[in-house]
Amino acid sequence: MRDFKMVLEERVGQVEKILNAYLPAEEGFQKTIMEAMNYSMKAGGKRLRPLLMMETCRLFGGDLKEVEPFMAAMEMIHTSSLIHDDLPCMDNDEYRRGKKSTWARYGEDMGVLAGDGLIVEAFSAAAGAFGATKHPYRVGEAIRILAEKTGIYGMIGGQVVDVELTNQPVSADHLDFIYRLKTGALLQASMVIGAVLAGADEKECGIISRIAQNVGLAFQIQDDILDVTSSQEVLGKPVGSDEKNCKTTYVTLNGMEQAKSEVQALSQAAVEELHSLNRRNEFLEQLITMLITREK
Amino acid sequence: MRDFKMVLEERVGQVEKILNAYLPAEEGFQKTIMEAMNYSMKAGGKRLRPLLMMETCRLFGGDLKEVEPFMAAMEMIHTSSLIHDDLPCMDNDEYRRGKKSTWARYGEDMGVLAGDGLIVEAFSAAAGAFGATKHPYRVGEAIRILAEKTGIYGMIGGQVVDVELTNQPVSADHLDFIYRLKTGALLQASMVIGAVLAGADEKECGIISRIAQNVGLAFQIQDDILDVTSSQEVLGKPVGSDEKNCKTTYVTLNGMEQAKSEVQALSQAAVEELHSLNRRNEFLEQLITMLITREK
Repeated sequence: MRDFKMVLEERVGQVEKILNAYLPAEEGFQKTIMEAMNYSMKAGGKRLRPLLMMETCRLFGGDLKEVEPFMAAMEMIHTSSLIHDDLPCMDNDEYRRGKKSTWARYGEDMGVLAGDGLIVEAFSAAAGAFGATKHPYRVGEAIRILAEKTGIYGMIGGQVVDVELTNQPVSADHLDFIYRLKTGALLQASMVIGAVLAGADEKECGIISRIAQNVGLAFQIQDDILDVTSSQEVLGKPVGSDEKNCKTTYVTLNGMEQAKSEVQALSQAAVEELHSLNRRNEFLEQLITMLITREK
Repeated sequence: MRDFKMVLEERVGQVEKILNAYLPAEEGFQKTIMEAMNYSMKAGGKRLRPLLMMETCRLFGGDLKEVEPFMAAMEMIHTSSLIHDDLPCMDNDEYRRGKKSTWARYGEDMGVLAGDGLIVEAFSAAAGAFGATKHPYRVGEAIRILAEKTGIYGMIGGQVVDVELTNQPVSADHLDFIYRLKTGALLQASMVIGAVLAGADEKECGIISRIAQNVGLAFQIQDDILDVTSSQEVLGKPVGSDEKNCKTTYVTLNGMEQAKSEVQALSQAAVEELHSLNRRNEFLEQLITMLITREK
């Protein structure tokens, strides 16, 4: 596990370097929006999505160079959603990770535009992959997946339902929908795009898709569990916030016992599916296990 | 000219039909955002961008089927920018074309998300073109252009400067920047994408790009002129709004005489460049002339 942590740190460093290469130069009359975009992109975070993409590409023996534009694209999409979620008309959060949120720092109008800018730059980075690839249909398929899992049938669709159900009773079906789309869809897209660009076949992509779905759901339920069982010292953010905000979670709907066994079952299913592949990436397996059983 | 108007009406009808085929079904838990997107897309407008794209594709003898996903994508991007421009934190417009603006009708949060949703669906539609094409690199190049001309080096970049300079003195350089990017970039992308998808060569695409730039600029200056010289009856919207809002325009900066001769020069340059091509599309020539010399 000590080795895993060292490798993790090293790989996150590689991801950071790749992301930095795709950030816009802060110049021209429109400099402010570039500053706002870079401010948000550099605000930290686990870089989980590009990391999962890179490791899935590695699992299938793909060319890591080919996946770089999509790693940047994925983190830009994720960051754009954080910027827009924080807006006054959405969650009205002035802070994120201890720093001013983008709109609080650059103004609400620039918050909207910086989010828009990141969505579009994501597709710009992705489309840049055509310049270097010998597999244009793979790149096309990756862009299609990125758009599908970002849009109204993916992340944005999940966010719509989350926004609409604020302060309203949430059914198990709705909660499942929100979990699958709002957080799950991008995690899924990350892994599947890594597989597609590496040339994985349809059956392999299907397996990766199911693994990612299980991981995403388990990740989210673990979040709910930690909000009840952890402490602010361990978690690095206030606990008990779901109860305080009367938020429906997997734990409030199904109880702590079922939540824990669900995480167990989903995590086991994910690892078993990984083992069913004729390939190994030990680091990816450890990463997935870490995500699900994490204490913070 | 009577013939032109008939053909125009017919072709706009074709464009509308194509756009409709790309609108999302209003179903599922996230139904509200689909309604908001369709409400905005169906609010009317001249459909100028998809029309220019289609006619440029026709000019180069391209397969009109290939350009359809991009016609829809372009109108979605344009519509998303109207939705976000109308937001309270931007222009705070409650009405557009005599109807409630999207945020005023569906709420501010849904306004942000509907704009986001349309940007992403635009790239989703564009990426769908890979499923049917024999020219994946052309499609890839078209997506690249779409993203470049939409993002911070295109439309969004222009909007950033426009927003930042509200109620501030605007230099000729800044005005030129805003005109070129905020309105010009998408018009340019529309025509160039039509050419690229039709298989036009680099030289031809360069000519189309210059034509589109001249048309975009002339179109914008004509807008400034009409705001001074037209009447509400003819224009269908209040005139004199630039003066009332102390807005810097090409007319306030350079005077009416120069504005008029600039439109003349730009329009002549555009038509001459069109004639330098070894191809003709009479309707496209008439359309461009109409756009520039229009009285409303």
